Amino acid sequence: MPTRAEFGGFPRLGGIVAELGELRRASQKRRYRDGRLPELPSREATIEIIEDLAASLYPRHFGPPELTTDGADGFVLYTLDKSLRALREQVRRELLLLANGSDDGTIDHRPRAHEIVDAFAQALPQIRALLDTDIRAAFEGDPAAKSLDEVVFSYPGLSAIIRHRLAHRLYLLGAPMLARLVSEIAHSATGIDIHPGAEIGEGFFIDHGTGVVIGETAIIGKNVRLYQAVTLGAKRFEVDASGALVKGGARHPIIEDDVVIYAGATVLGRITIGRGSVIGGNVWLTHSVPAGSNVTQAKPLSESFTFGAGI
Amino acid sequence: MPTRAEFGGFPRLGGIVAELGELRRASQKRRYRDGRLPELPSREATIEIIEDLAASLYPRHFGPPELTTDGADGFVLYTLDKSLRALREQVRRELLLLANGSDDGTIDHRPRAHEIVDAFAQALPQIRALLDTDIRAAFEGDPAAKSLDEVVFSYPGLSAIIRHRLAHRLYLLGAPMLARLVSEIAHSATGIDIHPGAEIGEGFFIDHGTGVVIGETAIIGKNVRLYQAVTLGAKRFEVDASGALVKGGARHPIIEDDVVIYAGATVLGRITIGRGSVIGGNVWLTHSVPAGSNVTQAKPLSESFTFGAGI
Amino acid sequence: MPTRAEFGGFPRLGGIVAELGELRRASQKRRYRDGRLPELPSREATIEIIEDLAASLYPRHFGPPELTTDGADGFVLYTLDKSLRALREQVRRELLLLANGSDDGTIDHRPRAHEIVDAFAQALPQIRALLDTDIRAAFEGDPAAKSLDEVVFSYPGLSAIIRHRLAHRLYLLGAPMLARLVSEIAHSATGIDIHPGAEIGEGFFIDHGTGVVIGETAIIGKNVRLYQAVTLGAKRFEVDASGALVKGGARHPIIEDDVVIYAGATVLGRITIGRGSVIGGNVWLTHSVPAGSNVTQAKPLSESFTFGAGI
Amino acid sequence: MPTRAEFGGFPRLGGIVAELGELRRASQKRRYRDGRLPELPSREATIEIIEDLAASLYPRHFGPPELTTDGADGFVLYTLDKSLRALREQVRRELLLLANGSDDGTIDHRPRAHEIVDAFAQALPQIRALLDTDIRAAFEGDPAAKSLDEVVFSYPGLSAIIRHRLAHRLYLLGAPMLARLVSEIAHSATGIDIHPGAEIGEGFFIDHGTGVVIGETAIIGKNVRLYQAVTLGAKRFEVDASGALVKGGARHPIIEDDVVIYAGATVLGRITIGRGSVIGGNVWLTHSVPAGSNVTQAKPLSESFTFGAGI
Amino acid sequence: MPTRAEFGGFPRLGGIVAELGELRRASQKRRYRDGRLPELPSREATIEIIEDLAASLYPRHFGPPELTTDGADGFVLYTLDKSLRALREQVRRELLLLANGSDDGTIDHRPRAHEIVDAFAQALPQIRALLDTDIRAAFEGDPAAKSLDEVVFSYPGLSAIIRHRLAHRLYLLGAPMLARLVSEIAHSATGIDIHPGAEIGEGFFIDHGTGVVIGETAIIGKNVRLYQAVTLGAKRFEVDASGALVKGGARHPIIEDDVVIYAGATVLGRITIGRGSVIGGNVWLTHSVPAGSNVTQAKPLSESFTFGAGI
Amino acid sequence: MPTRAEFGGFPRLGGIVAELGELRRASQKRRYRDGRLPELPSREATIEIIEDLAASLYPRHFGPPELTTDGADGFVLYTLDKSLRALREQVRRELLLLANGSDDGTIDHRPRAHEIVDAFAQALPQIRALLDTDIRAAFEGDPAAKSLDEVVFSYPGLSAIIRHRLAHRLYLLGAPMLARLVSEIAHSATGIDIHPGAEIGEGFFIDHGTGVVIGETAIIGKNVRLYQAVTLGAKRFEVDASGALVKGGARHPIIEDDVVIYAGATVLGRITIGRGSVIGGNVWLTHSVPAGSNVTQAKPLSESFTFGAGI
Repeated sequence: MPTRAEFGGFPRLGGIVAELGELRRASQKRRYRDGRLPELPSREATIEIIEDLAASLYPRHFGPPELTTDGADGFVLYTLDKSLRALREQVRRELLLLANGSDDGTIDHRPRAHEIVDAFAQALPQIRALLDTDIRAAFEGDPAAKSLDEVVFSYPGLSAIIRHRLAHRLYLLGAPMLARLVSEIAHSATGIDIHPGAEIGEGFFIDHGTGVVIGETAIIGKNVRLYQAVTLGAKRFEVDASGALVKGGARHPIIEDDVVIYAGATVLGRITIGRGSVIGGNVWLTHSVPAGSNVTQAKPLSESFTFGAGI
Repeated sequence: MPTRAEFGGFPRLGGIVAELGELRRASQKRRYRDGRLPELPSREATIEIIEDLAASLYPRHFGPPELTTDGADGFVLYTLDKSLRALREQVRRELLLLANGSDDGTIDHRPRAHEIVDAFAQALPQIRALLDTDIRAAFEGDPAAKSLDEVVFSYPGLSAIIRHRLAHRLYLLGAPMLARLVSEIAHSATGIDIHPGAEIGEGFFIDHGTGVVIGETAIIGKNVRLYQAVTLGAKRFEVDASGALVKGGARHPIIEDDVVIYAGATVLGRITIGRGSVIGGNVWLTHSVPAGSNVTQAKPLSESFTFGAGI
Repeated sequence: MPTRAEFGGFPRLGGIVAELGELRRASQKRRYRDGRLPELPSREATIEIIEDLAASLYPRHFGPPELTTDGADGFVLYTLDKSLRALREQVRRELLLLANGSDDGTIDHRPRAHEIVDAFAQALPQIRALLDTDIRAAFEGDPAAKSLDEVVFSYPGLSAIIRHRLAHRLYLLGAPMLARLVSEIAHSATGIDIHPGAEIGEGFFIDHGTGVVIGETAIIGKNVRLYQAVTLGAKRFEVDASGALVKGGARHPIIEDDVVIYAGATVLGRITIGRGSVIGGNVWLTHSVPAGSNVTQAKPLSESFTFGAGI
Repeated sequence: MPTRAEFGGFPRLGGIVAELGELRRASQKRRYRDGRLPELPSREATIEIIEDLAASLYPRHFGPPELTTDGADGFVLYTLDKSLRALREQVRRELLLLANGSDDGTIDHRPRAHEIVDAFAQALPQIRALLDTDIRAAFEGDPAAKSLDEVVFSYPGLSAIIRHRLAHRLYLLGAPMLARLVSEIAHSATGIDIHPGAEIGEGFFIDHGTGVVIGETAIIGKNVRLYQAVTLGAKRFEVDASGALVKGGARHPIIEDDVVIYAGATVLGRITIGRGSVIGGNVWLTHSVPAGSNVTQAKPLSESFTFGAGI
Repeated sequence: MPTRAEFGGFPRLGGIVAELGELRRASQKRRYRDGRLPELPSREATIEIIEDLAASLYPRHFGPPELTTDGADGFVLYTLDKSLRALREQVRRELLLLANGSDDGTIDHRPRAHEIVDAFAQALPQIRALLDTDIRAAFEGDPAAKSLDEVVFSYPGLSAIIRHRLAHRLYLLGAPMLARLVSEIAHSATGIDIHPGAEIGEGFFIDHGTGVVIGETAIIGKNVRLYQAVTLGAKRFEVDASGALVKGGARHPIIEDDVVIYAGATVLGRITIGRGSVIGGNVWLTHSVPAGSNVTQAKPLSESFTFGAGI
Repeated sequence: MPTRAEFGGFPRLGGIVAELGELRRASQKRRYRDGRLPELPSREATIEIIEDLAASLYPRHFGPPELTTDGADGFVLYTLDKSLRALREQVRRELLLLANGSDDGTIDHRPRAHEIVDAFAQALPQIRALLDTDIRAAFEGDPAAKSLDEVVFSYPGLSAIIRHRLAHRLYLLGAPMLARLVSEIAHSATGIDIHPGAEIGEGFFIDHGTGVVIGETAIIGKNVRLYQAVTLGAKRFEVDASGALVKGGARHPIIEDDVVIYAGATVLGRITIGRGSVIGGNVWLTHSVPAGSNVTQAKPLSESFTFGAGI
């Protein structure tokens, strides 16, 4: 049996730590030109902020159990105050990081962070009103829904759109990294990946949702419904003379009002899906279609089968 | 440098909170006809209940570390007692919500909730026995599996089916909203979306699993194996005279015993996949196939390529 | 109103617990031939170990907020020491489980566990260096990326590859069950399912990621980029004379350097995708292609549509 | 080295648990005549309620860090609502326990609990106003105090009087067991043991405090100051004919306004310490003294000493 | 305004850490002759063990809320199993520490730790039975007590005696350091300091309790009642020829059955307080008194006072 | 049975909250002349800082379990860095509060806070060295001590002196409110109340400790030993012409080297207890005694007793 000392530790640990430290410092030297380490936005803090904001918008569903009307008002006031101030600090850090090296490190980013978060706060009632239309759309779009309350506390599509509408506002106000972080937190929980830049109209509903991807410059009208694994993406192969990918600019689809897109459909490029169109499952679409289109696969994929010849 | 007061708070917060409160009350007035706010089922409580039930079924894998045989018996007794009583409260809340407005708010839903949970408890040994067949199916269906224990504590397909079998029982017993909440909790963790209404026989195995969707009226026989991104869905376009979607009724596939369905296959509508069939990857199938069928794509999707012309 | 006693508990609970206990003991008798219950690896402990290791590699991103340079060195030293010792215990349990029944239960697996973890520790600087190339690849492959820091703390592809590179090392060193558990933890959080056996070169980037599946014997070169829902899988139908699935041996693709594979593409079998090739979205590929290939779908899936006929 | 099984558990544990269960049931049979187990008040819940109430009274000192004015209003509203409802449940349990056996177990104690807590809530502003006088008394009575804020967040005497004033109100309203529990929570934290029945006027200050005991029927006027280890107790030896202790009735001292009692003094029985008196350290006092008295020890205790004869 | 770097850290921290490390290593070298660091018993673990044991003895009072009869049995079985195994590990560490340097570090202390904890477990029903007499004594000795339940969950004297009876058993079985740790945990919570060596008969009650000290060799009979600040101590001045304190051997009082000792009394040395005696408040007693004694102070301490001469 | 609404909330809560708000604002207006609310030092943060500092000084006793030598170095570096920065923030808040109203609120207190904490950090090795002498004194002064390790992790006297030596340094460096808060945290846990201003030499030991009070200007030499309930206090009655208490200036005792003071002794005023003196239990001492004195009570307190007359 080994002695105590034999399993006490890892004798070469000091060297490993030193190597990791050198890698870290080399990498920091490349990233931060002035040699100072800025505070980074915090994933944990951002998760908590977003949870708090969702609870402020729907306190009876995401807040503490058994809130009364009075308690809800108090909870919202307190929670908003807390989460907005925490958000302000995270926005300040993003501004600091974005300004990396462009100033002498002494600029106080707090006033700008305050303005951004103040404007964000002003937008919250409008965001809640939009989300109410999303809830109703989900309730109406899925007869399996037993009540509006059920939609709020269990539908992943709603979870994703709540976070998207918050993230989109941050994106518009000049905090794109935080907005992205919020999107990725929702992506991890729901499998739905909506870039915070995407513009989405009222009454939006995603059913099932796993594998949905919506790109940065997508524009989605009112009362649009998507199913799982739908991609609203950019076309590939836009490279410049040197072979590097060209991005930026409007490169994702425009989906007009009242469109339904079924599971697995792929819609690519700056094309327009006309109002009221229906895009079938697994469709691959790279050009615009007019209003009222009904697009299905050219032919079924499963013509070839043999009877009675199983494994 | 700003003064303390300058960043102390958000001066317009009171107004924002008031606006949110009005939106909330307007929405509550629409939902609850009698003006009283029912207690809602709690997502947090439900997550804990399901974790506890899973730990009661497999205490050495999901319970506290290093349980002995004696300790496990005590743990199961205590944990079941606790989680069943917590479940009873959640069922009561669902009954209250479902009865919204149909009574004068004075009905005591506890006796019915007690009956439901009592019947649920009686079914637990049978659920565990079924799950044992699922574990064995996973172990046999995936030679990469090193032990039955590994299957239990690391396979997402098993995580999903444990929760489905619990949710399905709640669904059958009259708690469909809680059942759905349980399903969505599993969906978030695994990317596997099984509606709690689906009937699934013994020896069920889903490999990888991300993107799998199984609809409410699907019926799955014994020893069926699915891979990632398989959809067992409803056909679209069933609309009534007014153009509204018609749902309800059997609308999802019947999968007979011993069927294997490979990744990305889409099986839609109330069709039957005959016993022992094999459905290939990416197949799109909307009509029944007899027992022993072997269905593959009509032709490969990748005929068009050019050599040596890459970016 | 019911009396207190009426809802106090579940009178048949004792019987249910007894039934569950019998099922558990029956199952344990089959699993553990010598009648003794080995300690099992712990999912919770493994999650904490992996979080700690990730924080040791990128302390400013995944460690506690506002680490200074000094603090980071201390944090890494302390956290590595703690997590490596915790890992050693988990490895010991895996060895115990793998040795199930093959010895008399008295073998001390600690020396071997120590060796494995010591070798694992030695590899950490190399893993960090590889991950730095992945971060750069993500930053360059996604112009939406605002900074290297943003990639580290918000990209799911990076989260997955950090955990894969750790899991792969455990897999190589003889702890395949723990490696698999780590993979599944990453899978749950990101929707990206990489088997710990897969070999992946530097500069690897997965964008969006939900639904990606990479098989055990896949080999991926340098600077490869994948999008969501890409499968690098095994072909099916490899059955032996008795109809049982044959697995083991190299059965997944080889992807050479500088390949890009777009969303939804399925690449199956031990084929080789030559250096610099581009595989288009939704492509289904089951044979090798030479370097520089540009593979797209045979024809678009969406030829059939009708204008103006929507719902 | 022992085998795994050898240290797996305690073979006689089942018997021990059974014995403990029998003792428990025997004791319950004696306590609860009707054989039903009432829910008990919860120490943990009560601790949380009291922490919340203290934070509602002094949100910037005992609430979350960095509260703004707006945030404080919201916090108080939410926290009061939450803690008062939690308190109502605890009061209901006390009423249930006090009614043990006197009814058939079907009485709904909620209406009475609601009345009690409603009256308690009404009293909170008055309690806060009284506590403000205590804070000022501490600040003025201890020149070491640097600020009123310091008194609030660090003085044990203030911690004790906050909890006493809350407990006393519960005592008056008919929840003496909860009141006692609150007192004991304060006692554990501060070493100051004030029975919730004691009546204490404004401007009360206890310095140091460890070992102070104030009995149930004590009456203390305004601006009284005590030091550590002061006892305001009952005289002993009040026994009835059978030798049993007689309690109940006024048996503790009346301390009039502006009295100071120094450390270690013992004041026993229903005596009156007249206004403005000063009671010296270690004094033992069992009869009343008029206003303006200055009581010291008869003679010093330390006459007998020897020089130069140490150990 | 300072730059980021200016407040980033403490430049001399490395040196401070190194100095602390040297002090630590110097101290370890003196303590552990063989240069190996033994694992130490853990205060945190011991606190949890004792909380668990108390909850196992009185599950409805110290266990989770709303335990049913079934749930309690399960809880006790599970909690005892867990806490006894945790205790075994702590006992092992004490044995390791006590054996410091007397062996070559390879002795396996687990068998002895197992025996000790097994014997400890056997004693638990007897400890519970004793504690039931203490509860009854408190209820009868304090007419303010409203119910036996109130005594259990709020009396500090009961909290102390529960922990003492557990600690005393550990002391007798050969784990004196753990026993002491348990005592000190109770001391911190209650202000009552009972050495784990003290022998205490059934029906023991301490009222108020702050400042009570009971020495290692004290022997206390049945139905004894103490009040706050009572000391049962050793006489001082037992020094040997070299002036060093002589300790060990019986040096604390024997208190016979049915004795009452009032607040602040000091009883010193190996004297006997005869059965049924009453010792008055503040009495200083250093010689034995026969059964039935009634000891009070020689004369009141407060003869000297002046009327009307206050500050 | 009451309806849901009947127990939903407290209808008058809004008014109560408003009243509390007014009281709060009135009180704030008095305290903060410029109408701005400064951030307050945080009790919770301070508790954590002190726990971290204690763990940095004695990492194997107060740090995480099973630290190795390497791990301890990392832990100390990381923990010190973290806790010193957190301390700096608390010191800044104290400076802000102390400057209340004396500036226009724009002064940046960080540089001064940084200096204070930097000096504090420099003193830590010296504090650890002093504490090592205290540990040894406890071990030698209490033969019941089984090992130096036991002293560190279970003796309340050591817990108190660790916190005192840290608090005293903060007091000297200009953070008296934080210092006081630290003292009160120790007081609550141990019943030992040492003012942070007290100067205490090496080798200090307090046994039992409950009720000990040591005043601000006390000076204690080397190798002094105290028992429970000892007071080193100020004499009372130092009032000025207007009757107000005069404080400040040296007013507590000087205790020279090698003095022992037994339980309950009270030593008051700026007197000197000469080197090597022994002060007996319960002694009341208000004048100086020369070196080598042996002071006991004038006569025993318990002359008056009657045999056989007890209850």
